[in-house]
Order: sequence, then structure tokens, then C-alpha cells
Amino acid sequence: MRILLSPLSGMNLLSQHEVEQLKQSSNSNLYNLFRNCALAVLNVGTESDDSSEAQTKYKDFEINLLSRERGIKIELVNPPTSAFVDGKIIVGIQEHLQAVIRDILYNANRYPNERLAELASGAIITNEVFEMLRNANVVSPTDHPNLVVCWGGHSIKDHEYQYTKEVGYQLGLRKLDICTGCGPGAMKGPMKGAALAHAKQRIDSGRYLGLTEPSIIAAEAPNPIVNELVILPDIEKRLEAFVRVGHAIIIFPGGAGTAEELLYILGIMLHPDNKKQVLPIVLTGPKESISYFEEIANFIELTLGQEALDLIKIIPDDPKQVARYISEKMEDVRVYRKENGDAYQFNWTLKIDQGFQQSFNPSHENMASLDLHINQDKKELAANLRRAFSGIVAGNIKEDGVRSVKEHGQFILDGDAELMLAMDKLLEAFVQQGRMKLPGAKYEPCYKIVT
Amino acid sequence: MRILLSPLSGMNLLSQHEVEQLKQSSNSNLYNLFRNCALAVLNVGTESDDSSEAQTKYKDFEINLLSRERGIKIELVNPPTSAFVDGKIIVGIQEHLQAVIRDILYNANRYPNERLAELASGAIITNEVFEMLRNANVVSPTDHPNLVVCWGGHSIKDHEYQYTKEVGYQLGLRKLDICTGCGPGAMKGPMKGAALAHAKQRIDSGRYLGLTEPSIIAAEAPNPIVNELVILPDIEKRLEAFVRVGHAIIIFPGGAGTAEELLYILGIMLHPDNKKQVLPIVLTGPKESISYFEEIANFIELTLGQEALDLIKIIPDDPKQVARYISEKMEDVRVYRKENGDAYQFNWTLKIDQGFQQSFNPSHENMASLDLHINQDKKELAANLRRAFSGIVAGNIKEDGVRSVKEHGQFILDGDAELMLAMDKLLEAFVQQGRMKLPGAKYEPCYKIVT
Amino acid sequence: MRILLSPLSGMNLLSQHEVEQLKQSSNSNLYNLFRNCALAVLNVGTESDDSSEAQTKYKDFEINLLSRERGIKIELVNPPTSAFVDGKIIVGIQEHLQAVIRDILYNANRYPNERLAELASGAIITNEVFEMLRNANVVSPTDHPNLVVCWGGHSIKDHEYQYTKEVGYQLGLRKLDICTGCGPGAMKGPMKGAALAHAKQRIDSGRYLGLTEPSIIAAEAPNPIVNELVILPDIEKRLEAFVRVGHAIIIFPGGAGTAEELLYILGIMLHPDNKKQVLPIVLTGPKESISYFEEIANFIELTLGQEALDLIKIIPDDPKQVARYISEKMEDVRVYRKENGDAYQFNWTLKIDQGFQQSFNPSHENMASLDLHINQDKKELAANLRRAFSGIVAGNIKEDGVRSVKEHGQFILDGDAELMLAMDKLLEAFVQQGRMKLPGAKYEPCYKIVT
Amino acid sequence: MRILLSPLSGMNLLSQHEVEQLKQSSNSNLYNLFRNCALAVLNVGTESDDSSEAQTKYKDFEINLLSRERGIKIELVNPPTSAFVDGKIIVGIQEHLQAVIRDILYNANRYPNERLAELASGAIITNEVFEMLRNANVVSPTDHPNLVVCWGGHSIKDHEYQYTKEVGYQLGLRKLDICTGCGPGAMKGPMKGAALAHAKQRIDSGRYLGLTEPSIIAAEAPNPIVNELVILPDIEKRLEAFVRVGHAIIIFPGGAGTAEELLYILGIMLHPDNKKQVLPIVLTGPKESISYFEEIANFIELTLGQEALDLIKIIPDDPKQVARYISEKMEDVRVYRKENGDAYQFNWTLKIDQGFQQSFNPSHENMASLDLHINQDKKELAANLRRAFSGIVAGNIKEDGVRSVKEHGQFILDGDAELMLAMDKLLEAFVQQGRMKLPGAKYEPCYKIVT
Repeated sequence: MRILLSPLSGMNLLSQHEVEQLKQSSNSNLYNLFRNCALAVLNVGTESDDSSEAQTKYKDFEINLLSRERGIKIELVNPPTSAFVDGKIIVGIQEHLQAVIRDILYNANRYPNERLAELASGAIITNEVFEMLRNANVVSPTDHPNLVVCWGGHSIKDHEYQYTKEVGYQLGLRKLDICTGCGPGAMKGPMKGAALAHAKQRIDSGRYLGLTEPSIIAAEAPNPIVNELVILPDIEKRLEAFVRVGHAIIIFPGGAGTAEELLYILGIMLHPDNKKQVLPIVLTGPKESISYFEEIANFIELTLGQEALDLIKIIPDDPKQVARYISEKMEDVRVYRKENGDAYQFNWTLKIDQGFQQSFNPSHENMASLDLHINQDKKELAANLRRAFSGIVAGNIKEDGVRSVKEHGQFILDGDAELMLAMDKLLEAFVQQGRMKLPGAKYEPCYKIVT
Repeated sequence: MRILLSPLSGMNLLSQHEVEQLKQSSNSNLYNLFRNCALAVLNVGTESDDSSEAQTKYKDFEINLLSRERGIKIELVNPPTSAFVDGKIIVGIQEHLQAVIRDILYNANRYPNERLAELASGAIITNEVFEMLRNANVVSPTDHPNLVVCWGGHSIKDHEYQYTKEVGYQLGLRKLDICTGCGPGAMKGPMKGAALAHAKQRIDSGRYLGLTEPSIIAAEAPNPIVNELVILPDIEKRLEAFVRVGHAIIIFPGGAGTAEELLYILGIMLHPDNKKQVLPIVLTGPKESISYFEEIANFIELTLGQEALDLIKIIPDDPKQVARYISEKMEDVRVYRKENGDAYQFNWTLKIDQGFQQSFNPSHENMASLDLHINQDKKELAANLRRAFSGIVAGNIKEDGVRSVKEHGQFILDGDAELMLAMDKLLEAFVQQGRMKLPGAKYEPCYKIVT
Repeated sequence: MRILLSPLSGMNLLSQHEVEQLKQSSNSNLYNLFRNCALAVLNVGTESDDSSEAQTKYKDFEINLLSRERGIKIELVNPPTSAFVDGKIIVGIQEHLQAVIRDILYNANRYPNERLAELASGAIITNEVFEMLRNANVVSPTDHPNLVVCWGGHSIKDHEYQYTKEVGYQLGLRKLDICTGCGPGAMKGPMKGAALAHAKQRIDSGRYLGLTEPSIIAAEAPNPIVNELVILPDIEKRLEAFVRVGHAIIIFPGGAGTAEELLYILGIMLHPDNKKQVLPIVLTGPKESISYFEEIANFIELTLGQEALDLIKIIPDDPKQVARYISEKMEDVRVYRKENGDAYQFNWTLKIDQGFQQSFNPSHENMASLDLHINQDKKELAANLRRAFSGIVAGNIKEDGVRSVKEHGQFILDGDAELMLAMDKLLEAFVQQGRMKLPGAKYEPCYKIVT
Repeated sequence: MRILLSPLSGMNLLSQHEVEQLKQSSNSNLYNLFRNCALAVLNVGTESDDSSEAQTKYKDFEINLLSRERGIKIELVNPPTSAFVDGKIIVGIQEHLQAVIRDILYNANRYPNERLAELASGAIITNEVFEMLRNANVVSPTDHPNLVVCWGGHSIKDHEYQYTKEVGYQLGLRKLDICTGCGPGAMKGPMKGAALAHAKQRIDSGRYLGLTEPSIIAAEAPNPIVNELVILPDIEKRLEAFVRVGHAIIIFPGGAGTAEELLYILGIMLHPDNKKQVLPIVLTGPKESISYFEEIANFIELTLGQEALDLIKIIPDDPKQVARYISEKMEDVRVYRKENGDAYQFNWTLKIDQGFQQSFNPSHENMASLDLHINQDKKELAANLRRAFSGIVAGNIKEDGVRSVKEHGQFILDGDAELMLAMDKLLEAFVQQGRMKLPGAKYEPCYKIVT
């Protein structure tokens, strides 16, 4: 089956050089990256977080760019049928395809692999993140901060999902926009709820911003409600993007990825330079999830201390209250930015240490040598714990990580006994609650904790 | 509590004369009509189809129009709080308020009560319906017919509701728009589903057209998703509006009102002048509702014959198939209109006999004297049956009808034994299935069939 | 030659009844009015103010409305070719055609001739003017008053024309919009200048509002720059429309029509109820026209007194100063309206006596019996003088007036010797300066002053 | 005087790095370039083509970028007052300022000087030109080619200027857009005419595209009608941009610059690969200019032969005919592009030899060593003649060129006697006709022809 897509408005015109770059023959690495990301966005709706599944199922899928008089046409060969209605692609999905083309090309030309690794200075990395987002048209001048980052698991229970939807609905009624990692579960619910509320409020410029990365897009394909999609090159740029474009953060129940996100933002907010930053962080979930929050809170208290815990506002089982709290805080955010001459649409003044910015490659060696001792600077500890959870996410659902675990066995995590016990307990709870992988096969831990 | 609303764009500027007309003192009838309709749209979300409930609960509600430098401000005194989020009105609800002002004034000035009754000639009534719709900006030039009228009960079971949502979703994915009577149940589900699909298709001009009337708006308040609302003066104008603006009709399970609608369209389509009309009519519902359709089909066959039955396509339990069928038929509709020089946005060529156009006042006397004999012209029979069901709807949920039944007892319906038995059976089934009123108190029939 | 126009967006959908009304056969009076106005807007660009000329030249011109699937098509038979470029109509001209259809129908249905005459009460007339303007979409909510009415002659000298253009340019640079009687000369120059300035200021919503009437549209066809056109039924409604929608008035050199306009606004502003009204009135022109202003000022002083003269600001030969003055006054206008709760877009509080509202039919009898004595209430005198000049305009260029003078000879104007002498002098100056008719044949006065 | 400009929509958000780059202290070369271009666009309206004049007059002018919460504010210190109306900048001029910021930064980051010089391969240069234009949002998908490049002198006589305006008006009536070098004279007239026609055709997306370069922007400041402005780094990129985005070329009378442009396009069109290219080229002017065309035609025939002459269509004194010819040819352009799979908005298939792409530095040495012999490949000859005229333009009005001539004396041009005589004659005619410099001082030739 061959399908030819005419460009939608917003599709960048491409130069002949760019078309060449994405040709199957000319550059197999870049083409493969392009093809796999394209496949991921086309394969939305599949209930699977196994990246390799789609690759196997659609091994004869191809994507080609063709120059035509009105711009570039996109040729799809044997694409997943779920992206189509009566033979026509769903427009939201084509927009995602166009975002893939835009970002793959941009990153390839601006940040060839070798250069990405070199990016040492924090200021430069922040600049690069800004330019990626600007190139994707997702930072634009605004009069009022209103973008709420929602973090949480891709694999959550139905009542938790309904809860995230209700929170999204209450946020949407208050004219707030949503940014998530754009997969299923807690990344989809708030957008769906907000979209309904925006319809009732007659807001047709509602933003459902999805930030993803090539290594996870296949496991967490962006839902078509996402109307702004950016593919950042790795998890560290993606996390930085979240915290610089967001004006508030809501954390729903989740697994290792959610823990990574929480540790990331706490580690940053503990930095003395960020003492005066205004960035509301809320933990919330339905009443059945309260024990989950207690576990998280205990782990944070044990590792990062009360100071870290104080950065979080826990609001159990009250979507309206969550939305009202965030909505009221927006004015503080606005005032802070204005007084500090910082942009509403990109938080330049947030200090992010290089420990949080530099790419962490979760090889077995790197994972084993993480410094996981409780007696270190809290920010450092947060950075190292973040890396540990990041590695577990990779081992669970990122293609390279999964393969690496298959080849070399479980990641070994070693450190203080007390810390290791706490981590083990937390991770075990995630496993028991089914938060590590979508339901299906039995979960095989990709890590081993030396206790 | 006093709230002052600034006009939204789309709010008509009013002349001083018009502001005078809607003053509390100057014209108590018109003001009351205005106030009650306003209260109805503000009271959305209440799970009740008892018109008098809101009147009692909000007896100190007032609405006033104030002239200001940028146009008219709307003052609300003691309005229902459900229309507000943190003290601010939901924009969709304010739009409905503005539609109320627009239509109440228009009808008052163009069609004072005495004149409405006089409207004898069919052509004139059709013209008036067109002008009401044009004044409400809901007939605009279009390139392709795509408006699907969805009829069905306001009181339906949850699985039926989910089914209407799924049909709406499938219609929306095919870029079709929705028109309903704009209350809850089967009038809300298709809009909600279509709105989600439109978001995925990036259609921000999706239409969710609600057609209502003053006597029913309180029982079936328009959901805020409705983004075009018109208040026609009575049920006959409203039914005519449905069939002239719609390009296809889907009928979901429902009660007396749905039966009225079905009889209306069948009676019209049986007219020899409409032989070549292209207007797809689909009956559909989830598999649990199949027996419902059988009962309806039997009743139609008995009363209007096989010819009437042939006008309907029954598609049980298959939302995709429903949407695909409608979508394909749209091209036939387009060709028919083009070939006949008829407007895409208003079906001028559909012949509607005066029996279907003239207002029927369901007094006890008029109900009792309906000619319900099986041996009459099928169109006439359909018109009379339509009136009978219309009266039952009034007795069930319209304020005047309910009061009249309370005062004078049940409506008496008399006619052929065979026909009466069939009606009795059908109505009894509606009662058993809980389709006459929203769940709550026990249903007391407002009619008595003389068998 | 037959040309079929597809409706442009903004073209009202018409009901079948309305299409019938404009058919050639059904209603020859209305059709003729429609046809003549249509011909006038199509015939733009001709250098002639002789209404009958186009009628003779295009006597086989026809216009027909045809119902089609996307709305109404307009068929033109043998139209003037100047409206077309390579066989395609200039879009601005088609918009004018559509305005003609809209207003002719609206006035025909709302204000049949007999009813127009009856409109006695001032409040009702004002309401009707408002509704005509609202129906034409020219009163819409605004945040800041900025509409400048420019009055002045249709027949002016080139340096005067250049001056009006320069004033328009300076107004446009200050983001002010223009409203004129929409013919050539001083009605066109300000719009042309403003359009250029608006382009430089990147204002693409600039308004060039033309207010005209059926009896003058042929002599003063609207220039295609006019992007909002309204055809009011007579000169009195048109004058009222000017002063209620405008936020300031600039008067350039002109002839009898300009004198009529000046007397109209002075007569109104002299009313005690308008003492606090903020409505800047500026007289301006190039330095060569200064003697013109002196004559006008003398006439005003003699007839209406110093109080009237004080209402006018004369700014000779300084376009920048004119624009700066008007621009600064806009804030006063805004404050006045806000404080008085009056709409920015329509001046409801301006008191207009019935003497200025009621239609004056300039028959020979009515002209002869005008009360032109200097010793009467100044407002009354202004009203009578206004009527006298109005009659002279009719005798000069309005079709009925021209014919009437041809049949019955000159209008006779009689009154105080002093006043008659002053009028004679003023009119003689207009004649000498070529302001009565476009250059061409020698001007034959249509009036005779009994001195 | 200090003025702070808030960013207009369309102003790129800048990264902190970019703001740093344009600081006065950090990079004086880039800052100076930025400041001078900014001064040029602010200084529009001055009747001077002497680049150094503004520098002297506004030597204390400064421009600074300030980070603020809604983006970047632009601070102007002691700017020319002609850019302001009552203290507020003309919006079109601010847009030009923003274009300066955009392009200066883009070129600085993408094409640092050293790299620009290296750009050897034609395909790469073409790609770079495309990316500059894309970054400036001036190549966007279109359905129909309609962009007409107008070339001609900045110093032309009034009747010639009126003629270019009339041609622009006729093009605009036919819905064609205009692209010029954006200075005065023949670069301004067509835009002004087209803008008026577009207003009449209700086209509010009319394009007035100005392509300029830093070295000439001061002498030919863009008129505020220009609504898309791009600053290409040098004349060669600018010429390539013209011929790749334009769909037709009209050449009005002009001087050395116009000769350069004509030789450029003829040299390219003579390439065998361009045999089938469809790119209409028209020479036109008022009847008084006919002798001018004869001289040009003679020179072309003598140097490039009849084949070159056949590429041009000469249409004397007939604006309507010019517009009609271009308008009809657009369909051929469309068909050619479609059949060749080439983009409507950028002519990729036009073959441009490197001789026309590479930067020519008009030093005295380079000028003197130009190969100006008639017996060489016609394309080569065209390229060399193009360079000769390019050098003369530099010596006339570009800052570096003027200074260089002041220091080292006239450029020496040497070659075939026959050719030198022809050049001398042509240039002498330009001088006589006042086409080399704006009227004012006596023109001192910057060249000396060795004959």
C-alpha cells in the first residue's frame, strides 16, 4: 500500500539538500532514525510499550520525501492502518509526521552526534534547547503564563487515568494549557480533559504540547490530541525543555520515569540560586493512590530531606483544588518573571547544574559506577538517583536499553545499604502496582540492587 | 450575587428599543420568556428534566441588560453557580445566553404571537424558518454537505450513551458535523464524540448545532459543547429547521419525542414530491437495543406500511459502518442538490405539507379529537400520530403540558382498536425502558389510550 | 455580454422570497431601484455627475439573481466594462453590488415607502437608522473611537484634491478611519490617502465607510476603495448616520451639498441638549482655499451667529495639524462617551430635532414656502437653510430634482432681503469656483433667489 | 531621545546568546553592521543615495536589544524622526527593523564571512540562498505563480516613475505580487500601484517583497510599503534570490544597476540547460523612454547577440498590455514547474553558472583585470560585463566602493575597442539621462574606459 500525503500548512519547505539527507540510500543512520520515529507516530493507538514490536510488525514500512510543485509530498509504503480513516490519514497524525521531519533534520544539521556530546557549558546547552523549541514554534510571546507540565506513568490504572482526565478538565476550564511527555496514561488523560474544557470555554488555541525523544517515541507514541510535538535529542534536553517552558508541574502516579522526573526537578530546585524561583509543584492522584504518595514522600525525605519535601504540595483526590491552586499560582509566576526580566515563555533564570544537563548513557558500566551514597550533596545525590532511574526506564522500554539488558543481563545498582533498601522498596512497589510496563507479560526487572 | 458579563464577540449590538423590550418592567411576558430561557442555559448540568424545578430553586434569579460604551453588558442576579468556574462564566454558556437574547428579540419583533398563528401558507413558514436560521448565522454557504442530524432520547442507558458518543466520534473522524435537539443523552453524546475526533483532525470549525424551543429548553438545557444554538418558536418550526439544514439523519433509541421525530420525517418523505429527495435516514444503537428497533419497525410497518420502512436504513451495533454509510451518501446529497439547483445549506426543495408545518396545540380537546384511524392517507396518518406523540412529550416534560395534565388529568387518545393497541404497546415499552423521563421518581403516564 | 458572479464571502444568503422580490417582472419599482443602484456602482470611474447619462448609455443593462447550490449567483447583462479587468469583475465593485442587494432588500422589507413617511417620532427614526447600519455590519463594538467623517465637494480643483489626500494620509498614519459620502473629489481623496498610510502602518482592517442614498449614487458612484458601503433611504437618514457613527468631522471645500452638511451639524450642535457633546468639527483646505472659508464663515456668522462659528475649528493649509488635532480629540470623545454610558460605535445621546430628521421633499412648492427669515430660532433657521441647500443639490444632480427643474423651471427661494443676498453671494461663489457640477457644460442654476 | 519598541508579532524570540551577539561592546563589527542597517531603514524618506550622509547626520544613533518578559524590546537612541508619527514608530518601519535583526543574526551565525567566501559549489550556494529566504518566511507554498520582479533605476524621471506606478496598478488588478530591490524610483512605483489595486481587489495578503543587501540598504532604504524584507549578504546572492523566487521579470529604465541585472538574467538564460525554462522578461517604459530601450537593445545585440535579444519582450508605453502579457504567461510558468516537478515558490531547476554565483569584489585590481573581449563565450562575456557594471554601482553608491574610488581614483576598464566604445556610449547615456545618481550634485564618473 502506497499513500501520498500533500503537505499541510505549517510543513516547512525543504531544501534539496534536506530532501537528500532523508533519502533511504544516502544516509542510512539518519534515514533509520527518521523511519522509526515516523513509524512510531503512525502506530499510535496500539496498546504496547514494546518498541521492537512495531519494527517487527511493520518491517516493510518505508517513508520517502518527494519534491513537488507545491512543496514536499510524503510517500508512505505499508504504513499501519490505524492512522487512517477510510484511507485518509488523520490530520493530527500527519502533523506529527511533519514534526518528525522538522526535528530530525534540525537536530541532524545543528547537532551532529559528535557535537552534542561536546556541549559542555550549561549556558550553551540551554541555548540549544531554546533554539530547538523555537525552531519548532513552541515558544512564542505570551501575555500570561499558563502552561502546566503533567508528569506521571504511561501505565496507570483506569481510576487513575480518569482522575488525570478530570484534573485536565478542571485545568482547561481555567484556561490553562497542558504539556506532557505525550504517551498514554497520565500523559494523555490531562490533555483529553483539557481539550473538552477548552471546547466549552471556546478556546481554539488550546495547547497540548508533547515533548518526546527518539528513543522513547516508539514506546510512547504521541496521541493525536497533541497539537505541538517536539522531538528533543535525549532525555536530558527533554527534561530541561519541560522545566523551562512549563509554568507549573503536576505529578501523577507513575513508575521509574516519574521518579526520574521528580528527582530531576527537586535536584534543580534545591540549588541555592533557585531559592526565589516560583515554580509550583503538585503531587496528586485519586484517593486509592494515597499510599503511593506516602511511599514517594518517604523516599524523598530519606534521600533529599525535608527541604526537598517542602518544595512539593501534595493535594490528594481533589481535581478542582489542584486546578484552583495552580491557577492562583500563575499570577505569582507572572510577577516573578516580570520582576526578574525573565521571559514568560522560557525560564532563562532557572539554574540547572551541568550534572542535570549532560547526557547520561546508561551502559552497564555507567550504571554500576553511579555514586549512590546518602552522604553527599543533596543536589548531587538527586542527580545520581535521577541517572539510576533513567537507566531503569531505558532498560524497561527504550530500544537500546532493552537490547543491552538482553545481552548483558540486569543493570547492577550499588550503594549505601539504607539507600539501596529504600530504592528496592520503591521499585518493588512500582512493580507490584504494575507501573513498570503496560499490562501483558510478567515484568522482568532490568535492574538488580546490591543490598 | 451579581455578575456583570462583558459582551463576547458575536454578541449583536442592541438598539435602545431592544434593550427596552427586555426590561423587567416594560413587558412582563417577554421578560419572563427571556428570563426563563436564560435560566435554562445557565442551569445546564443539572440532572433533571423537570422544568419547574429550576424555577423554584432560582426564583430570585434576574437578568438585566445594561447599555455601556462598548455595547450591552449582561447583569445576572443570583444565577446558578454551575455555570461558573471560580466566579467566571464558562464562555460557551455565555454564548448560549447571547443566543437567547438574539432569538427572543428576533422572534418577538418578527413574529409576535398573533402573527405566528396566522402563518398559513407553507412557503411563508419555510421562509420564516430560513430567516430565523439566517439571523442566527447558522446557514452559511458551504462547499460540501456534512451536517448530520442526530435524534434520540434525552433519557437513555449508559451503554446507549457510550454508543452515541462512539458514533459521533466516527462521524467526526470523517469530518462530519452534528446537529441535535441539544439536551442530554443522545443529543449530547454524538457532539462529545465528534468534538474529540475533530480535535484529532485539527478541525476547529466543527459545528455542534443545537436547535431548541422555549418550551423545552428548561428540560433539555443545551450542553456547552453546542457552539451554535437557535431557539425556534415552537416544535413544528424546530422540526422543519432540522430537516432543512440537515444532510442526513441518525435516529438513536429514545421515547415519545424520538417517535415524534421519526413520524415527522417519514410522513414528509412519503410525499410523492419527495420521491427523488436524497436524505439518508439511519436507525442505530448498540446490540442491546435491537429489540427496541424491532418494536419501532413493527409499529411503522403496521401504521405507515412497508414503503415507509424502506425509507430507513437500520444498522445495528456498528458505529464505523454508520459513519461510513453517511459519509458516502453525502456525495449523493451534494449531487442531488447541485442538479436541482438547491442550496447545500438549506433544503428548499423538500416538500412539507401544511399538516406538518402548522402549530399543534396539545390541549386536551385537540388531543382527544385527533383522527387516529388506520384507514387514511399515510401522510395524514403520520401527521396525526406525530401530533399525538408531540402531545405526550408536552405532557411529560414541557411546562405548559405538565401543568395542563396536572389540572385536567391525562390526555385521552382514541381511535382504531388495532392502532390504539399498537400505540399502547409502544408507549408501554418506552415506559418500561425508562425513556419517558430521567430516572428518579416513578413515571406517571400523561396519556390514556382508549382501546 | 453576460457575466455570472459567484457570491463573495459576506454575501447574505437570500431566501426564495427575497430572490422573487428582486425579479424584473415581479416588482418593477423595486427592480428598477435595484438595477439603477447596481448600474451606478458598476459604472464607477466615469467622470460625470449626470445620473441620466449612465441610464442612457447602458439602457440594455440587466441584473438578475439566480439560486444556486452554494447560494445566489449574480447575472449581469451588458454591464459597463470599466468594472472589469480582463473579463473579471474588480472584487471591491462586487462587494458594492452585494451591499446594494442587501440594503435595497432590507429597506424594502422594513420600510416600505408608505411607512418611511410615517416615521414621526425622533426616537423611532434613530432606532431605524441604527438598525440599517447594524444590518450592514458597520456598527461593531470597538475599544476606541477613530472614525473621521470627511465632507466636501464632489467637484473640486486638483490642488484641493491633493490636499484631501494628504489629510487622509496624515489621519491614516494616526490609525484613524474614514467615512465619506463615497463619491469623487473630497469624498475619495481622504480614503486614498488613508489607505496608503494604513498599508505603511500594517493596518489591514482600515475602514473606508461610504454612506450614500439611491438618489445620488448614480452621480457619486462609490470608489472601489470604499470597503463598507451603506445605502440609506434618503438624505436625512444618511446625514443622521454620518453624525451618529462619526467621532469627528472634517469639512473640505465644496458646494451646495457641503453647505447642507455644515448647516445640518451646526443646527444640531446648537441644541442646548448637545452643549456637552464632544464632536470635533474642523474646516480645512489648501492655502488657495482660504477665501472660500472666509465666505462660509461670514455666512454662518450672519445667519447662525458667533455661537455657531465657535463650534468650528478652522485649520488652514496644515494636514499634519488637522490630523494631530483630531487624533488628540479622540480621547475626549472616548471619555465623554464612557462617562455618559453611550456606545463608542453609535452616538445615541446626540439630540437631533425632528426638523432635521424628517424627510424634506424638495418640490417647487415646498422650496418656495421655506421660512427663510433671519429672525427665528437659530436651530430652526439652520434646519430651513439645510432644506434650501438640499433642494439645490437635488436640482443640480439628483435625478428626480433635475427632471423637476427641467419641467417646472427654477426653484424659487424667498425670504429676508439680507439673508437672500447672503445666500445669493455664497451660491454665486460656488458657481464661480465650479463647485456645483463637474466641469464640462456651463452650469445653469436650478434656483432663483428673490431678493 | 530614547524610544523603546515592544516587539510586533512576527518578531523572532531571541536566545540570550543572540542578544549578546548584537551588543555594542561584544562584537563591534557585527554591531556596526546591525546599527547601520537599522539606521538605513529608519532613515527612509530621505531623498539621498549617499550612504555616508546618514552616518554623519545620525552619528549618535544607537540601537540596543533588551530582554523583557514578553520577549525582546528594541531601544533606539536618537533615531531619525522621519520614522515616527507623533512619537510612535510607523509599524512598517518597525517590521523592517525586525527583519534587519533576523537577517543579520542569521547570516552571522550561518555564514560567517570566512565561510561565505568558501562557498564554492553552485548547489551549496543555491541551498544557502533558499535557506536565507525560508528563514525570512518569504518562500511559502503557493498554488499559483504570481510574483513579478521589477527592476529599474533608483533615479528616474517623474513621468517614468508614474509609468512604473501604472504598471504596478495594472499588475495588482490582475492579482500579481511585486518584488523589487526596495529602494526609490522604479523599485517603489510598482509596489505603490499594486497596493492600490490590491485594495480595490480586496487582497490583504498582497506581497511587496524587497530584497536588499547591507552595502546598498543605506542608499536605497526600503519604503514602508515593502511588507517582506530580506537582507541577503551580497549582490550575487541577492540576484540569485530575485531570479529563483520571481515568476517573471519586468525591466524599467535605469542605470548601471539595471544594466547589471539585465546582463545577469540574460547570461543565465543563455545557458543551454535553461533553453526550456519559462521566465518571461519584459522591457517597458513610457514613450519618452523608447530611445533608452533602443540603446540597451543595441548594446545587447552587439555583445550577446540576437539570441540574447530574443529572450526579451519589449512593450513600449502600454501598462495594461504589460500586465496582460505577464498575467497570461503565469499559466505557462505554472505548467512548466508542474511538469518538471519544480517548486512554484523557488525555481530550483534554473541553471546558474558559478561565474554568476560567486562573489565579485570590485577592487581596482579586479576591475582592471576583467576579461572584456567580445570573442568569448556569450555567457562568460555576460558574466564579465555584469561584474563591470556591478563595480560601477559600487563606485557610485556603495559605501566601500565610493571610499575606494575616493582613495585610489577611477576604476579602469579595459578590453576590445569595439566593446569599450559601446560601453562608453551606454554609460555616457546613463550619465546624460541622470540615471547614475539622484539629482543634486554633478555626477563624477567612478570609472574610466580605456578605448
